[in-house]
Amino acid sequence: MTITVIPVEGVPEVHPGDELAVLIADAATVQGTPLEAGDCLVVTQKVVSKAEGRIVELDPDDREARLALVESESVRIVRRRGDLVISETRHGFVCANAGIDLSNVEHGYAALLPLDSDRSARHVRDALRARYDVEVAVVVSDTFGRPWRMGLTDVAIGVAGLAAVLDLRGQPDAHGRELQVTEVALADEVASAAELVMGKALAVPAAIVRGLHPSWLREGSARELVRNPADDLFR
Amino acid sequence: MTITVIPVEGVPEVHPGDELAVLIADAATVQGTPLEAGDCLVVTQKVVSKAEGRIVELDPDDREARLALVESESVRIVRRRGDLVISETRHGFVCANAGIDLSNVEHGYAALLPLDSDRSARHVRDALRARYDVEVAVVVSDTFGRPWRMGLTDVAIGVAGLAAVLDLRGQPDAHGRELQVTEVALADEVASAAELVMGKALAVPAAIVRGLHPSWLREGSARELVRNPADDLFR
Repeated sequence: MTITVIPVEGVPEVHPGDELAVLIADAATVQGTPLEAGDCLVVTQKVVSKAEGRIVELDPDDREARLALVESESVRIVRRRGDLVISETRHGFVCANAGIDLSNVEHGYAALLPLDSDRSARHVRDALRARYDVEVAVVVSDTFGRPWRMGLTDVAIGVAGLAAVLDLRGQPDAHGRELQVTEVALADEVASAAELVMGKALAVPAAIVRGLHPSWLREGSARELVRNPADDLFR
Repeated sequence: MTITVIPVEGVPEVHPGDELAVLIADAATVQGTPLEAGDCLVVTQKVVSKAEGRIVELDPDDREARLALVESESVRIVRRRGDLVISETRHGFVCANAGIDLSNVEHGYAALLPLDSDRSARHVRDALRARYDVEVAVVVSDTFGRPWRMGLTDVAIGVAGLAAVLDLRGQPDAHGRELQVTEVALADEVASAAELVMGKALAVPAAIVRGLHPSWLREGSARELVRNPADDLFR
């Protein structure tokens, strides 16, 4: 089962109200890799937020305004050190600055997370089905840090048509014993694989992950990826 | 820049003293996808530990013995709840049960992390160069949980010939502004991409990640991925 990760290049600058599905599907076709049934299309949060108009004015040098915006996008502050705020968003994600991002947007503006990033993923998936008659999974990805480990990885903040978490409980390992490792964060791994061809500086806003196991393509939600705070040792 | 992720199947059961590089390279050749210069070979910790004899007897029902083993493999306990221990290993990794794993090993045994997983990666890389005259990067991967998010992802615990963390500081974004997101955990994303074709239950112990940007293939170390405890808000 070989998996191929294909960047979608040539997507035009995205504006509020644009139909992302069309911009990306057409760019994929133009570059000779049209979307196929069973593909997973990974789309960055940045262009989803642009298409949904989740862009606000923000003077990057106005520290007070920036912190106020982070607080207004958070339901709870988890940690704070200097200007760095780790907080929980309304979606349940814990990340820096409530996911607000100043890069790859116009100067003087900031991109906020989509209000409902699962819905964003479903919207792209439904539009692709309706307009191109192609059944693809969709992941909306964002770039988060982690405790303990340096560097950022892309994770899934919205999922449609894909198991976000793959439950392997009850499956035997190669020695016929029940597996210890039972839940794979599939959608996060798909987002990370896609990031390898997107490159922060390249402004490639989407990638096709082709070859995922058909059994993984079921209804899914990024909510599967949010750990219950009561079970969380670090919240 | 399309990336291909190819599982290496047909690797025989690994025993202490086996030369992993040979077992995997030969299996890759037999299945028709020989290693090529510029590939990154991802090898699971489990087979590395087996080849290095890092397997110890452990009665899985002996709770006391299991906890004692976890403590002996830890330099510090970070959190504890019931039988779950989150600890820091001698490598600086923070993970459950000091990375000790009971699945995919014989009943009555446990696999410990390699003593020096960077050295393990370098050993495979050097052996491939010496025996097959092919220059590949090597990542030793393991499966870790994360705070806040459900499900596990594969990360890099050993790296050779690959930038573990990619530093994009100073590079402009698509709007010509300096990037906010500056450090990508490249080796972790490569490990996650590889996991997509390995499948915990399938016992595929290695995968080839083909198509990484040539500039990423430099000397690297998993130590790049260990956050300085002084800078860590969650240690």
